[in-house]
Amino acid sequence: MALSTDNLKGVTLALLSSGFIGASFIIKKKGLKKAAAASGICAGVGGFSYLLEPLWWVGMIMMIVGEVANFVAYAFAPAVLVTPLGALSIIFSAVLAHFILKERLHALGILGCVMCIAGSVIIVVHGPQEREITSVLEIWNMATQPEFLLYVTSVVVLVFVLIFRFAPCYGQSNVLIYTGICSLMGSLSVMSVKALGTSLKLTFEGMNQLIYPETWFFMLVVVTCVLTQMNYLNKALDTFNTAIVSPMYYVMFTTLTILASVIMFKDWDGQSIGNITSEICGFIIVLSGTILLHVAKDYERNPSRGTYTQISPTLTAQLNGEMLKHVEGSEMSSDGEIVVNIKRPDLYKK
Amino acid sequence: MALSTDNLKGVTLALLSSGFIGASFIIKKKGLKKAAAASGICAGVGGFSYLLEPLWWVGMIMMIVGEVANFVAYAFAPAVLVTPLGALSIIFSAVLAHFILKERLHALGILGCVMCIAGSVIIVVHGPQEREITSVLEIWNMATQPEFLLYVTSVVVLVFVLIFRFAPCYGQSNVLIYTGICSLMGSLSVMSVKALGTSLKLTFEGMNQLIYPETWFFMLVVVTCVLTQMNYLNKALDTFNTAIVSPMYYVMFTTLTILASVIMFKDWDGQSIGNITSEICGFIIVLSGTILLHVAKDYERNPSRGTYTQISPTLTAQLNGEMLKHVEGSEMSSDGEIVVNIKRPDLYKK
Repeated sequence: MALSTDNLKGVTLALLSSGFIGASFIIKKKGLKKAAAASGICAGVGGFSYLLEPLWWVGMIMMIVGEVANFVAYAFAPAVLVTPLGALSIIFSAVLAHFILKERLHALGILGCVMCIAGSVIIVVHGPQEREITSVLEIWNMATQPEFLLYVTSVVVLVFVLIFRFAPCYGQSNVLIYTGICSLMGSLSVMSVKALGTSLKLTFEGMNQLIYPETWFFMLVVVTCVLTQMNYLNKALDTFNTAIVSPMYYVMFTTLTILASVIMFKDWDGQSIGNITSEICGFIIVLSGTILLHVAKDYERNPSRGTYTQISPTLTAQLNGEMLKHVEGSEMSSDGEIVVNIKRPDLYKK
Repeated sequence: MALSTDNLKGVTLALLSSGFIGASFIIKKKGLKKAAAASGICAGVGGFSYLLEPLWWVGMIMMIVGEVANFVAYAFAPAVLVTPLGALSIIFSAVLAHFILKERLHALGILGCVMCIAGSVIIVVHGPQEREITSVLEIWNMATQPEFLLYVTSVVVLVFVLIFRFAPCYGQSNVLIYTGICSLMGSLSVMSVKALGTSLKLTFEGMNQLIYPETWFFMLVVVTCVLTQMNYLNKALDTFNTAIVSPMYYVMFTTLTILASVIMFKDWDGQSIGNITSEICGFIIVLSGTILLHVAKDYERNPSRGTYTQISPTLTAQLNGEMLKHVEGSEMSSDGEIVVNIKRPDLYKK
């Protein structure tokens, strides 16, 4: 227990970030609905009227504020602590959807929320303390230690193999290719974001770090990694169902980030076995909760329940003629998924 | 961390107990199946041929061994530690059913198992140490402290109100009445079992406790509480579906037992806030995992999946004539539930 002031700041920022990002989904969706009601065209069908809707822009700004808070959180607390707390944005979004959008939360979803919260509490209680860093050169030394260089090399080689060897053939059929690239790059993004964030924090505190080329190098790495990550995340979301991509991406990304942080920042050095065990358990629990929340979303619109089935935009194009006759309407879910309601779900075979 | 020898013995016994009890379900079911195949009559329909089946008796003996191990575990480790570990028997049974009975474990069930294990690890890592007790009189003093007497009085009053006021009117319609009585009595059972177990342990170690009337009083309390608990548990299981009774009973029983133990044995005195928080989280996680496992069982035989639906023995009698024409057969599940397979589940409305 006994969080240091810096850890406390980091955790608070991470929680605020999750709150903002979670709320932004809901406000954006409310904006989309309002715009659709006004123009008669749904965003999923190609309208851009939502760009004129102030609510949508409020959501967009909240999302940006959330991402900035997340960035700053990395400057104050270890990645092992900040990254898993990202799962809480799903909870905020699920709970707000329940109250504001009146989207009934499935019992399994509530269980998933409880797990994510319990797991997060355990992670925060047993998380390591942030090391005192006084110069970007210290981070540079950590980043160039042999163990971490080995990790970076493995990641880069793996990403290249995935992009040039596997993505062209299997990218459209195997969900692991694109999400794998995102997650591998994501772990490097977080490490460089943490390095850059800490440098900027030190600079604001009066110890100018911009005079070191290392700071600028970290900035370059951040831009490269984040752009690659975003590019392939969009590809994954375009190709596959959000309900499959999101939990898979979250699990791989968080696992690799924690691995990278443990190697680079030696987060677990000097921690008791009890603490490390608790952290790993807490992490597994948050992951399970996240998976459960996504599964619950799927159950909600399960064909078996009645008339609902969930079809991603790409799949919509694959609906056969017989099925299209039975389409009752479509709506957009809180995670931007288009849900098509059909009267005869039995005709839809995957 | 750093379990004391006594705690370690207690935890090992609790794990063994869960293993034996979990395996006993499976072996008993295998015995029932074998007996049914030999005689052509299913146990659920009224046959008693399983009494001639050695496998069934092996299962019965394993169950008794498991219960004894559980009893002894309470003599070595705090109830706060031993009680939640009881959930692991469900995992053992689910995993063994998957491999031995080839009952496919639902993805949600696997998630539930992972959660129960992770939660149990956290509870064990952060559980309190067992106090050094040298005489039954010490336990007597703990049991007669005002706080605990207040707890006992409240429980007894509540149980009487439930039995004489609510059970006659609502017992058959509200699942909380019978399970509430079981859980309230269960918390007293565990406390008296712990007192008796510790006395017997001391006696075996050469410090005869049978000379004190207090030991005999605790024995009387054990018998009274356990008999009442068993009686109302059977009533609950007779009236309602196992899938509803089991998780509800487990949640209430474990919560009340932990509450009783914290009041009587002051388990949380001298523990850090971090430890207590972790224990509570671990406990919530195990509870969520247990609920998830039971929900998963229900989904497996969900009418929507095809031809299965789950009907308790009492409900079977309520099936209407139209529905009975479509019954394909019946089988007994690993938790003793009778499952009737019908071709037209849509005819069955609760």
